Amino acid sequence: MPSRFGLLTFRAVFDTASIAHEIDKATWKKEEPKLRQALLAAQYRVLSEKKFPVLVLIGGVEGAGKGETVNLLHGWMDPRHIITHAFDAPSEDERARPAMWRFWERLPPKGRIGVFFGAWHSQPIVESALGHIDKAEVDQRVAEVNRFEKMLSDEGVLLVKFWFHLTKKQQRKRIEALAADKHTRWRVGENERSLFKKYDAFADASEHFVRSTSTGWAPWYVVNGAEARYRSLTVGKTLLASIDDRLANGAAPTSSTNAPPLLAPIDGRNVIRALDLKQKLDDERYELQLEKWQGRLNLLSRDEKFKKVSVVCVFEGNDAAGKGGAIRRITAAIDARFIRPIPIAAPTEEERAQPYLWRFWRHLPRHGRVAIFDRSWYGRVLVERVEGYATEAAWMRAYQEINDFEEELLQGGCVLSKFWLAITKEEQFKRFKDRERTPFKRFKITDDDWRNRKKWDDYERAVCDMIDRTSTEEAPWTLVEANDKNFARVKVLKTLVRAVEERFDTL
Amino acid sequence: MPSRFGLLTFRAVFDTASIAHEIDKATWKKEEPKLRQALLAAQYRVLSEKKFPVLVLIGGVEGAGKGETVNLLHGWMDPRHIITHAFDAPSEDERARPAMWRFWERLPPKGRIGVFFGAWHSQPIVESALGHIDKAEVDQRVAEVNRFEKMLSDEGVLLVKFWFHLTKKQQRKRIEALAADKHTRWRVGENERSLFKKYDAFADASEHFVRSTSTGWAPWYVVNGAEARYRSLTVGKTLLASIDDRLANGAAPTSSTNAPPLLAPIDGRNVIRALDLKQKLDDERYELQLEKWQGRLNLLSRDEKFKKVSVVCVFEGNDAAGKGGAIRRITAAIDARFIRPIPIAAPTEEERAQPYLWRFWRHLPRHGRVAIFDRSWYGRVLVERVEGYATEAAWMRAYQEINDFEEELLQGGCVLSKFWLAITKEEQFKRFKDRERTPFKRFKITDDDWRNRKKWDDYERAVCDMIDRTSTEEAPWTLVEANDKNFARVKVLKTLVRAVEERFDTL
Repeated sequence: MPSRFGLLTFRAVFDTASIAHEIDKATWKKEEPKLRQALLAAQYRVLSEKKFPVLVLIGGVEGAGKGETVNLLHGWMDPRHIITHAFDAPSEDERARPAMWRFWERLPPKGRIGVFFGAWHSQPIVESALGHIDKAEVDQRVAEVNRFEKMLSDEGVLLVKFWFHLTKKQQRKRIEALAADKHTRWRVGENERSLFKKYDAFADASEHFVRSTSTGWAPWYVVNGAEARYRSLTVGKTLLASIDDRLANGAAPTSSTNAPPLLAPIDGRNVIRALDLKQKLDDERYELQLEKWQGRLNLLSRDEKFKKVSVVCVFEGNDAAGKGGAIRRITAAIDARFIRPIPIAAPTEEERAQPYLWRFWRHLPRHGRVAIFDRSWYGRVLVERVEGYATEAAWMRAYQEINDFEEELLQGGCVLSKFWLAITKEEQFKRFKDRERTPFKRFKITDDDWRNRKKWDDYERAVCDMIDRTSTEEAPWTLVEANDKNFARVKVLKTLVRAVEERFDTL
Repeated sequence: MPSRFGLLTFRAVFDTASIAHEIDKATWKKEEPKLRQALLAAQYRVLSEKKFPVLVLIGGVEGAGKGETVNLLHGWMDPRHIITHAFDAPSEDERARPAMWRFWERLPPKGRIGVFFGAWHSQPIVESALGHIDKAEVDQRVAEVNRFEKMLSDEGVLLVKFWFHLTKKQQRKRIEALAADKHTRWRVGENERSLFKKYDAFADASEHFVRSTSTGWAPWYVVNGAEARYRSLTVGKTLLASIDDRLANGAAPTSSTNAPPLLAPIDGRNVIRALDLKQKLDDERYELQLEKWQGRLNLLSRDEKFKKVSVVCVFEGNDAAGKGGAIRRITAAIDARFIRPIPIAAPTEEERAQPYLWRFWRHLPRHGRVAIFDRSWYGRVLVERVEGYATEAAWMRAYQEINDFEEELLQGGCVLSKFWLAITKEEQFKRFKDRERTPFKRFKITDDDWRNRKKWDDYERAVCDMIDRTSTEEAPWTLVEANDKNFARVKVLKTLVRAVEERFDTL
């Protein structure tokens, strides 16, 4: 049922929803208890299987019964396992981070039902209705929303989106009724009245946005909100059908990635092998350069402009390539209160119950702060790909998801620097052996490291593909020749300093 | 070494720390590399054993090298596993919750080192130096801090507290030196100069607070900050000794609780058995009462005053006593956007790496919101006690910890209502059987429930002790006779409404 309904609304969004519907009391009395019991049973199956979360998005016009419907869902199901959140204007903490951060923060984990009021759809619709953004920008927002919801859907989130509609006449009647009743009068303020005056502009903006974001993987269900029994049964039955369908059939196979197939290497040359790993910096010049670039970084971190950006560094590289040492040369240059290194290890239980990128979103720094990821979201297209922890479909689509994620960061005021530290296979052998011999370094070398080493070529292939697909103009990879630690550390610092300076120039 | 040092400073806090110390360059060059390597090794043992977190508190006067020392610790150890946080004025989100919330939010998990700048000590010292709070209030804050740190220590947190001291003369010299250097001039603003004018008041307030919060389980190490090498070596060595001591000897056995021993029941009578579980409400009166109290609750939730408080309800009770049903009668009365039920299950991996109360702190609502805990922090003195999941020392000290925690909530503007839902053993048997017979209720009954039932008397004993020790005047338990569901639900609603109304009267 949901899919048919979805297709129908896709074609004639608001016209269909303007048709007057009414459910009589007798039908309601017969249907409601059955629906309630079925919804509760479905909720408990979701909860006990813990295979996927359900995310219900609620949008639409004022007075169309959004709040009432959600309260009803709470009454029908077990409210202890529903996480509801209303998004108003972003708070101080939220404004200091990329725009999507507050939604990620509140995603329901597997097994739970989340209800979001006014999520990522609200802002674009309001801005477009008020004429603050033009058609091109609207289209860009639409594309972003669609890619984001595709990602959630691919990650297993069951998205059920309801849009509550009222015709202009119905809305006027509703507002008058609310204002006439002393118990509900408080709900009709200046704000509601002035929004109503812009009904047509909002209807146009909404219709366009709802139509364009009604996708195969996350269709909108447009519900006429004028009549409570009809509205409630429609929402309840659609949600039930969506959950039951997922429980019975599992997720639709994730569409194969849109990315073109990866090229097979032909001549044995690639970006990694093309690096000149013989580059060196002697100790004397190193000390001078280190001081110079650390000094500049320190000055930048105390600049007034620094309060308007955040800095995110990503460190990836061969095992023993010197990530830790390079990171320490950055942290040494910045007041420890403002910089946080984030070592990425295996995901925790709470992280495994969320979409892949959740565990990186949660660590994003606010403006004026620096986060250094020691390993990162690229794990999916590196170790998870090579070791087979992620399916091919999952890591293939990760390239696009990662590019979208990084675009979010950039839009949110991040300076993003990504480093791949490369060493030769011989140099790695030397360093492994050295670690085994030195007592306080021994913890740094494990059987895993030796095992990974045997897959050197597979990793190299994965690295080249990664750089190919995620080195964008705005978020390029910096390949760091790291056989010589001095050279690598200075290159990292210099690159980071220049990236921050470039961003400052635009402020 | 740390304990001796701790005792010394305990006696003559700032006098001792005023003695001029100097470490010459040669000594530094000899000592520093050894210290560095030992600290790194210690850090990695903490990290790999994951048995306890280390929390370093940094306090003291301006210009005494606090920031420099922390930067040095980051340089000496692996900064990727250090979590540093500076607490400034609380943010919007933080102000809307109990004062300690922001510290709990950032506690390092087991295996990690946390560094807190200006944690829970700052505010009381500043307020007392500026004369905003009197001696009695200072003493109360001291007692709160000591109990809080005792709890952290009992929970296995290794607390290492450094106070950076400068004599008046040293501070003047330091400020002048900073102001004279163009690289550091920015650090001396109006704020620093005006603070310096109040040196004596701050010194008095600090000395008193530092002396009174230097306890056996969490002593302050007072360090003269005038000379960098001395200061750095002292801090580094003290931290190293503290960590090594813990690694070698484990935590000191938690002192037995200060609470008097629990009384053995003599005559078989207790608060639970004294309840009149025959109380009933027929359906007709129930409907009327339900509407009345839900209506009142709804009105309260829309009152302007509601924005200044948060509401926390705790539901505990016999299995099948009807907690879920009672909770639904509350959620039905309040806009779903403002109320969140929080079902407490077994702790997650991230929660197990933190002190016991952490997993409740993280769910505390902001002002204007309601949180309903379905089972709660009382698990420690109920199921964990009876099933032997917690040691006797742990659950015995939990009474005091819970009382302290709830006092925090009350001070932070919470209305706190705690309900124990009681049914008879016979009624429970009936409800278990009913659950087994009803398809969509079957998930609610497990082998665990039948097992718990066999320990009915042990649980009853635990409940009576709990009520005895945690039913305080400000946060009393409400015992709810729940053999009749109608009666129980109305009693819960009525109690909650009155608690909110009483709080409103004080606003």
